[in-house]
Amino acid sequence: MLRAFKRAYLSLVKFLEASINLISDSELDSLANLLESVYREGRKVFVVGVGRSGLVGRAFAMRLMHLGFSAYVVGETITPSARAGDVLIAISGSGRSAAVVATAEVAKSLGMKVVALTSYPDSPLAKLADMVITIPGRTKVSQEDRWEVRQLLGLHEPLAPLGTQFELVSQVVLDSMISELMYRLGIDEEDMKEQHANVEA
Amino acid sequence: MLRAFKRAYLSLVKFLEASINLISDSELDSLANLLESVYREGRKVFVVGVGRSGLVGRAFAMRLMHLGFSAYVVGETITPSARAGDVLIAISGSGRSAAVVATAEVAKSLGMKVVALTSYPDSPLAKLADMVITIPGRTKVSQEDRWEVRQLLGLHEPLAPLGTQFELVSQVVLDSMISELMYRLGIDEEDMKEQHANVEA
Amino acid sequence: MLRAFKRAYLSLVKFLEASINLISDSELDSLANLLESVYREGRKVFVVGVGRSGLVGRAFAMRLMHLGFSAYVVGETITPSARAGDVLIAISGSGRSAAVVATAEVAKSLGMKVVALTSYPDSPLAKLADMVITIPGRTKVSQEDRWEVRQLLGLHEPLAPLGTQFELVSQVVLDSMISELMYRLGIDEEDMKEQHANVEA
Amino acid sequence: MLRAFKRAYLSLVKFLEASINLISDSELDSLANLLESVYREGRKVFVVGVGRSGLVGRAFAMRLMHLGFSAYVVGETITPSARAGDVLIAISGSGRSAAVVATAEVAKSLGMKVVALTSYPDSPLAKLADMVITIPGRTKVSQEDRWEVRQLLGLHEPLAPLGTQFELVSQVVLDSMISELMYRLGIDEEDMKEQHANVEA
Repeated sequence: MLRAFKRAYLSLVKFLEASINLISDSELDSLANLLESVYREGRKVFVVGVGRSGLVGRAFAMRLMHLGFSAYVVGETITPSARAGDVLIAISGSGRSAAVVATAEVAKSLGMKVVALTSYPDSPLAKLADMVITIPGRTKVSQEDRWEVRQLLGLHEPLAPLGTQFELVSQVVLDSMISELMYRLGIDEEDMKEQHANVEA
Repeated sequence: MLRAFKRAYLSLVKFLEASINLISDSELDSLANLLESVYREGRKVFVVGVGRSGLVGRAFAMRLMHLGFSAYVVGETITPSARAGDVLIAISGSGRSAAVVATAEVAKSLGMKVVALTSYPDSPLAKLADMVITIPGRTKVSQEDRWEVRQLLGLHEPLAPLGTQFELVSQVVLDSMISELMYRLGIDEEDMKEQHANVEA
Repeated sequence: MLRAFKRAYLSLVKFLEASINLISDSELDSLANLLESVYREGRKVFVVGVGRSGLVGRAFAMRLMHLGFSAYVVGETITPSARAGDVLIAISGSGRSAAVVATAEVAKSLGMKVVALTSYPDSPLAKLADMVITIPGRTKVSQEDRWEVRQLLGLHEPLAPLGTQFELVSQVVLDSMISELMYRLGIDEEDMKEQHANVEA
Repeated sequence: MLRAFKRAYLSLVKFLEASINLISDSELDSLANLLESVYREGRKVFVVGVGRSGLVGRAFAMRLMHLGFSAYVVGETITPSARAGDVLIAISGSGRSAAVVATAEVAKSLGMKVVALTSYPDSPLAKLADMVITIPGRTKVSQEDRWEVRQLLGLHEPLAPLGTQFELVSQVVLDSMISELMYRLGIDEEDMKEQHANVEA
């Protein structure tokens, strides 16, 4: 018999639902504008993250590629050189992953635009970023000075461990950003299928 | 100004919320039982998937490792040999990804237990699996003979492209399975932190 | 005190040295011609291999990218769709890796040119390939009907396990192919540095 | 007609051949002793490197796994937590790759033993390592103060670009270390086949 599954599932859905009201429209609009101009000007987008945040980044990069972006993942085999004006999307719940911060520093030194997805707008990553998308995460919500957020969410005991909430909200935010870009760029699903990998075996 | 972002975000949340009632409790309970016994008997779990489904699988494997499982990803550098009784979790929305089906066939020939996460219980992958977790996906919902599902979801026009819904529901199902296993195995977040990679730089 | 290190090292060097005379000049020339035309016509190159053969393929793809090719690795995040006329380089010592053969079959069905690097010109992979580069490997050398090769190499007991020799010869062949392409395309090391990833942190 | 292929191939073989006399026996013996004790005491080995050096590290980690080591690759999905006494093998020709140096620093702070493979014994990476294996590389050879090495190699014009020589010598050194460990630990190829991944599809 399932013991914790449903409570966990529903609390994740609830967390997702509440999060939309905690994310700044103007931050999201800035990101959409940036990506739209990157696409129209043929600049490149790189994503970086460690652990599960890195997987969220890869999922986003894959969809950007389906949209026709020149998108790449830092650390994979096929990652070309970046130039001033290219964009780095750096994902770290804590904003303190050493490898992500180091990559963001290199990106800044090359004149790239750095976008941080993090729960901590005061973190080292957020401080050096040109643009910050503040994503609600469990750690954030459980901070005492944010008890109103916790109450809003009706969460008494967080069930999902570690950074699960941050990663999930980031995933849905980035997937929704893909829909926004489809709308703005006039790209439909058929166009995307044509870019989809077809030699996966 | 954001055009499609919020509608996309809310439709994904709605899809997630409706999906919980479309997934079989007994399928989920069987999976929890299988994983519990695998853990207690020290057997191995392998995950496989291509594209974004593969990323969902990796995110699950990482959390299984945090729980203390011997979990591996097919195709990564460190993937040991499998033996009869080990488990393969194969993720494919269509149930037709050639590489995933081929891996499942090899697994069966080794005497492994194959668990399929797919939207199609009649697909080649599902047919050769020992256990199927049927996951609602966009394609499924849009089938004519499932119009009641579409109505239930209140979806008039799907906004997220390709397999996004399948991948998202799979992710939340597998994350909730982690909570279920934490409960059953008496593992808390502090235990998991001790297994978490600490040399990511 | 080192016991087997030097014998192993020297036998690998000897194997490499002898192998150059066992690889067909005309096969190598055909590959160089194919890659030269792919470059000039802006077609794409994909590489595929499992295990250590896959790592050899990635190392080659990375250098092709440094040369300015549109090169990709099957199974990585950023792998676009392939079209007729694009090239798949499939690496498998035995020519029997199920995933590699399956990928090559998909490639053929798309009208791609398939190049096989294998020790077995009669293998399933070689049979469906448009072009085969036959690479000496340990297994091949140890076959009874190739005792002359073994004698030529002066190898009495192979020290390196499994596919090590195949992988090493493949690596040096592909690295030398990069030099050949630099010469033919008039690309020098400075040009390549400009393509080299610079946001690795 | 092949233009540069054979010269490149033979110069790589020559470089490999000459390199064995430039690598310190006592450094290699120390590494073999360390790995032997790690194996016997069940400690873990992690490898790290960026770009093609990272691929060399993965190929080594895979063979260590075949030998029965608990070996892992920093940055892959399944990378457990490290403890004091575990070993990090860090590969960087220049000894200056920011991500590799950062990882080595983290490893030191955890009480891990850091082994550096680099061409530069004065580099930041080598300085913080507990053990350095100095590997000849193109850059090193071409330094003016090492003209005797260049002469020894008979190299007038290096044909292979970027770090190719460093990567190749590192690969053969680490493959020969595998043979050394097979000898010391009494492991044969049949034992290794049993550990080899068998669900690659």
